[in-house]
Amino acid sequence: MTIERITTGYYRLPLEPMGDAGHGRIDTEELITVELAADGLVGHGYAYTIGRGGRAIRSLIDHDLRPLLIGQSAHDVAALWDRMWRGLLYGGRGGLVAFAIAAVDIALWDLRGLRENRPLWALAGGTARPIPAYGSGVDLPKPLDGLLRQVEGFIQRGYSGVKVKIGKPDAAEDLARVAAVRRLVGDKIDLMIDVNMAWSIDQALDRGRRLAEYNPFWLEEPSAPEDVEGHARLVRELPMPIAVGESLYSAWEFERYIAARAAGVVQIDPVTNGGITPVLRVLRLADEAGLPTSSHYTDELSAHLLCASKNPIYLEKHAFALDPYLEQPQVVTNGTVRPTDGPGHGLRFNPEALRPYAAD
Amino acid sequence: MTIERITTGYYRLPLEPMGDAGHGRIDTEELITVELAADGLVGHGYAYTIGRGGRAIRSLIDHDLRPLLIGQSAHDVAALWDRMWRGLLYGGRGGLVAFAIAAVDIALWDLRGLRENRPLWALAGGTARPIPAYGSGVDLPKPLDGLLRQVEGFIQRGYSGVKVKIGKPDAAEDLARVAAVRRLVGDKIDLMIDVNMAWSIDQALDRGRRLAEYNPFWLEEPSAPEDVEGHARLVRELPMPIAVGESLYSAWEFERYIAARAAGVVQIDPVTNGGITPVLRVLRLADEAGLPTSSHYTDELSAHLLCASKNPIYLEKHAFALDPYLEQPQVVTNGTVRPTDGPGHGLRFNPEALRPYAAD
Repeated sequence: MTIERITTGYYRLPLEPMGDAGHGRIDTEELITVELAADGLVGHGYAYTIGRGGRAIRSLIDHDLRPLLIGQSAHDVAALWDRMWRGLLYGGRGGLVAFAIAAVDIALWDLRGLRENRPLWALAGGTARPIPAYGSGVDLPKPLDGLLRQVEGFIQRGYSGVKVKIGKPDAAEDLARVAAVRRLVGDKIDLMIDVNMAWSIDQALDRGRRLAEYNPFWLEEPSAPEDVEGHARLVRELPMPIAVGESLYSAWEFERYIAARAAGVVQIDPVTNGGITPVLRVLRLADEAGLPTSSHYTDELSAHLLCASKNPIYLEKHAFALDPYLEQPQVVTNGTVRPTDGPGHGLRFNPEALRPYAAD
Repeated sequence: MTIERITTGYYRLPLEPMGDAGHGRIDTEELITVELAADGLVGHGYAYTIGRGGRAIRSLIDHDLRPLLIGQSAHDVAALWDRMWRGLLYGGRGGLVAFAIAAVDIALWDLRGLRENRPLWALAGGTARPIPAYGSGVDLPKPLDGLLRQVEGFIQRGYSGVKVKIGKPDAAEDLARVAAVRRLVGDKIDLMIDVNMAWSIDQALDRGRRLAEYNPFWLEEPSAPEDVEGHARLVRELPMPIAVGESLYSAWEFERYIAARAAGVVQIDPVTNGGITPVLRVLRLADEAGLPTSSHYTDELSAHLLCASKNPIYLEKHAFALDPYLEQPQVVTNGTVRPTDGPGHGLRFNPEALRPYAAD
């Protein structure tokens, strides 16, 4: 099972302009695809960005990871993950290097599934089951009526939870938006709030308390992830759970958060977290700590991975839907999703659909 | 003072094969150069790697940072640093993004020096003075006699300190090498030991204690930087100072180390730490904590920056000397170096010398 070929693609997928408090305006998703061939089988992987750094990820795979992989056995995915991590250690330990390793790691897990004829959820030690999904907007720039229409759409599609972005300069405007959404959806719908790191810890304490009356299901990324102890304080002092994960680039970063009791909900993203290999470790850490898990984007992969978690409370159905570019878009039934049952992770891009967006 | 043009170069500089315990064999230094033009002045910056990721850094500058900078005022370097950091936040917060921002930030500081006709040490609030230098090998693969010859060379060049790499699988071999170097140099020479993150914290406690009889001046990067509390334990329990810095990719990472008393010597690297802007903050943090400072590589820039530190104990004269590629190589006098006195940082690559190593 020798790795013979690694092929990458780079696409700039247009988005209806959106935005959040941490990353500003977002109008392009970068998609970096990986095909990894061994013994006549081809595993598929990908990474994405919210608009910048994608060419660098492709460069890392083409120039720096490929020479570490070609000719190696594809069997021991964990060993290959270590080889990539160590090979790019200088300038690595997270960030874009984690995204590049992730794209390859996802392809290696897919290949393992094809070889063993088992779906990813089984390889991950999980049990296939429906996971509740929530509708998630990247909606900070939307005027209030547009925000409410979007939330109505989520409810009509059957989701039992919805997420809205806050983090505007004017705290009163944030509160007004959350209040209006809560009024719209009533008390039976779970309402997630996402700050995208816009606040200081002190702001988060103050504004988090004022949000409490709207009974948020969680408060996500209230502040920049550098301050772990600050997040532990938020967990201790705020009434709602604190959710983190999309900006943690290794299992070690999660480990620090979980050990410091600085997270109440653990959100996995097999791209930003460095691949499926570290995510499975993160899910174990969350289980051991008794923490519920959720996902960030990566809807199709996370439907498998959350099946390996004891308490997967919600999968995020993200605004950057890959549906137009997939052979088989993920199906939502009664507000839940299930992992696919074929071998591997089952995610296949439609080359015809992607082609117009290919770039150098 | 509008930024009009940003030009990059990418070079693969051959090295006599070297290596260390964390990064393995190293035979190429990647050099990424930046020229940043505004109002007829051109600031120069660079980043380097130890062999991988350099093309990704160049891609980040060309495709992702350049559009954030062209047309902006070059005056407020700190504001531009924030703009770059935020613009590449997703996939950033360190790693290769920090290297790319660093290359631009170094050029911006150089440009500021040219504009104000002041050397970098003055812009940094420092006082020009000679800084003791030590000779530093990347010598783990060298047989013992080669290691000793290299150390003899350092002593002959007038350095009062020398650094050797350890972290071999066999701890006895590490001890034997350190013992032989100590015998060779006697008691008057400072002997730095660098593990390049090869040990667990428990190994570091055990092996560090066994190294104590050779009176190391410091023990550098004993373990992977993820475990800050582990390093704090090493600081508390080992008799020699613990030095860290080259693998910390932001001032926030240093802040965490310094707050946790997990570092005894603060080593700056304006490339890996994300630029001159964060390094000046790191030097202030070290001063406030009463910690001595040193440098990693970046000999020419660090000669300026350490002049802004209260207690700069040593500048590293690194094995990856840029001398063959510089218009004016750094001068070592009686084992010390001084910053240049012209405007900016004074580092200028010789295009003729670099040209043979240009790559795509």
